[in-house]
Amino acid sequence: MENRKLSICMIGFGNAGKEFCRLLIKKREEIKDTYDFDVIVTAISTKSKGALYDPTGVDLSRALHEVESEGRFSENNPKRTDGSTLEIIKKSGADVLIELSTLSIKDGQPAISHIEEAFRNNMHVITANKGPIAWDYKRLKRMANEKNLAFLHETTVMDGTPVFNLVEKTLPGCRVLRFKGILNSTTNFIMEEMEAGSDFETALKEAQRRGFAEANPSMDIDGWDAAAKTAALINVLMDGEVNPMTIDTTGISGITVKDIEEAKKKGGKIKLLCEGYRENGRVKGRVYPAFVDNRDIFSKVDSTTSILSITTDLMGEICIVERNPEIQQTAYGIYSDLLTLIKEWF
Amino acid sequence: MENRKLSICMIGFGNAGKEFCRLLIKKREEIKDTYDFDVIVTAISTKSKGALYDPTGVDLSRALHEVESEGRFSENNPKRTDGSTLEIIKKSGADVLIELSTLSIKDGQPAISHIEEAFRNNMHVITANKGPIAWDYKRLKRMANEKNLAFLHETTVMDGTPVFNLVEKTLPGCRVLRFKGILNSTTNFIMEEMEAGSDFETALKEAQRRGFAEANPSMDIDGWDAAAKTAALINVLMDGEVNPMTIDTTGISGITVKDIEEAKKKGGKIKLLCEGYRENGRVKGRVYPAFVDNRDIFSKVDSTTSILSITTDLMGEICIVERNPEIQQTAYGIYSDLLTLIKEWF
Repeated sequence: MENRKLSICMIGFGNAGKEFCRLLIKKREEIKDTYDFDVIVTAISTKSKGALYDPTGVDLSRALHEVESEGRFSENNPKRTDGSTLEIIKKSGADVLIELSTLSIKDGQPAISHIEEAFRNNMHVITANKGPIAWDYKRLKRMANEKNLAFLHETTVMDGTPVFNLVEKTLPGCRVLRFKGILNSTTNFIMEEMEAGSDFETALKEAQRRGFAEANPSMDIDGWDAAAKTAALINVLMDGEVNPMTIDTTGISGITVKDIEEAKKKGGKIKLLCEGYRENGRVKGRVYPAFVDNRDIFSKVDSTTSILSITTDLMGEICIVERNPEIQQTAYGIYSDLLTLIKEWF
Repeated sequence: MENRKLSICMIGFGNAGKEFCRLLIKKREEIKDTYDFDVIVTAISTKSKGALYDPTGVDLSRALHEVESEGRFSENNPKRTDGSTLEIIKKSGADVLIELSTLSIKDGQPAISHIEEAFRNNMHVITANKGPIAWDYKRLKRMANEKNLAFLHETTVMDGTPVFNLVEKTLPGCRVLRFKGILNSTTNFIMEEMEAGSDFETALKEAQRRGFAEANPSMDIDGWDAAAKTAALINVLMDGEVNPMTIDTTGISGITVKDIEEAKKKGGKIKLLCEGYRENGRVKGRVYPAFVDNRDIFSKVDSTTSILSITTDLMGEICIVERNPEIQQTAYGIYSDLLTLIKEWF
């Protein structure tokens, strides 16, 4: 019996994209058996690795091998293609766009235009890129609704840990009053190293060596990554209309070893907190380094672990914790959205 | 326009049942507006407060007032009725049974027979009583499936905090490899008081005074409540077939102030842990007091707060925490199952 086909157009083929493809290769038969869908990738567009297009399904193992050995899709790959990302989205004829391009914190582009193009071509969208959710969620969601298309984004905050789905699917009837989280690993790691006696520069270098921090670390250090996650959470969970620039953001560059020692003396630590709250009928967000008492569960959120506490009208306060995630957990987030799409939209 | 009717038969009218009714009174119009359902309670059966029956809908405010002022439904209430619980379930003609009777840890009865009777009468079931899930989940779930009826039980572990729904609705494609939790408030509170300098007896009395611990505290102290929760989690989340008696259970009665002081010296605490794990192709459970390092997030789960860590094949380890719940969170668990029923089964 022929399986139904579900075709994907991928934008971006970095660590998350590659790991998602590995997972897809591993799970392809299971998806066929469980949901009667044959999932194929008909196009991959990247900024610096070239692009592939094959309406019968790109050979993912070959694509992975090429990028790992040559750093890009091979000149010899017969499925290499040209054209802009927007042209490839259109040409892909895919059922779903998976948006994995690099985040631009300043405006959420070009990811937003990729998503618009997908909706124009009647494609569902899964984004692991938080830019569009932080900058333009409401409008994009409306576009999706008008065409009865899915717009899924579980991976944008805390990887595959259910955050958006937690509220949407498991807390029916609840209204989110506020949230508080520790959502940026780099700053969390740096302040922990400083507490253990390191200075800021050494701690930052160690984070870069371990692969948490980017070569240009200001996205993390200055709180922009945390602000984008806060904006995404506010827009989706609290029906707010904010963007990273309207989040009241203070990074950790002003934090000294002395501040951390003083916090230690007072029986606590400094953590970069992300908060969403309601004030005078409006939803607001802030990101700031704050004292956290050692008796508080937030003080034990160390290294790359993250936590989100959600307070609702009916269910009080619950927290969800992602412990020591790896790239597999990012790939799972995309995969879980793909299964949600299959189960709920086909 | 006439709303569709959804009628409930309630077994039990203790703190959780009363709080659920208060919530239902508050939310009745919202449910009508949102889901086009008029939710009524056609019967309430209790062990010691009498029973009410009104096919057009019991007056819940009156029922609450009577129980609060007289300790039972009034002799003057025209809707008072006689008959066994099984007879009332049958007579209720309700769409859904809400099972809130007192847990019998020894065999899960009489709740199991209430649920069987509901299924025989083509009623959906929501249970906040963990006995049936801990003792007889597989068979009851099969009965429900055969008649295409819902069998919902989110409240049985960690009140309304999503635990079962977390896995079912937000972790698609994941297999639960193991779990670890702190799920019993009484023992958690007692050991905390002992750490603060109290002896066992004084700590227990304080827990009783504050309303966590029962007059007969052995359900908690000897680990039975924790074992029942462990069994419920194993049966549902890990497809196991266990019951509270097959959980390897050690309570906290053997824990001395000296043990707790020694743990403190070693930089940690003693916590009563609940674990489910796979061993030689079988799923097993255990409950035992264990040393928890102060650096571990589990060490900060204090008083009535509870935590469940779930490790899956694809998503690694995530934890969910319920912070300082009150009776409202139990009522919300039942309410959330009711909304799930309305959204997914009607």
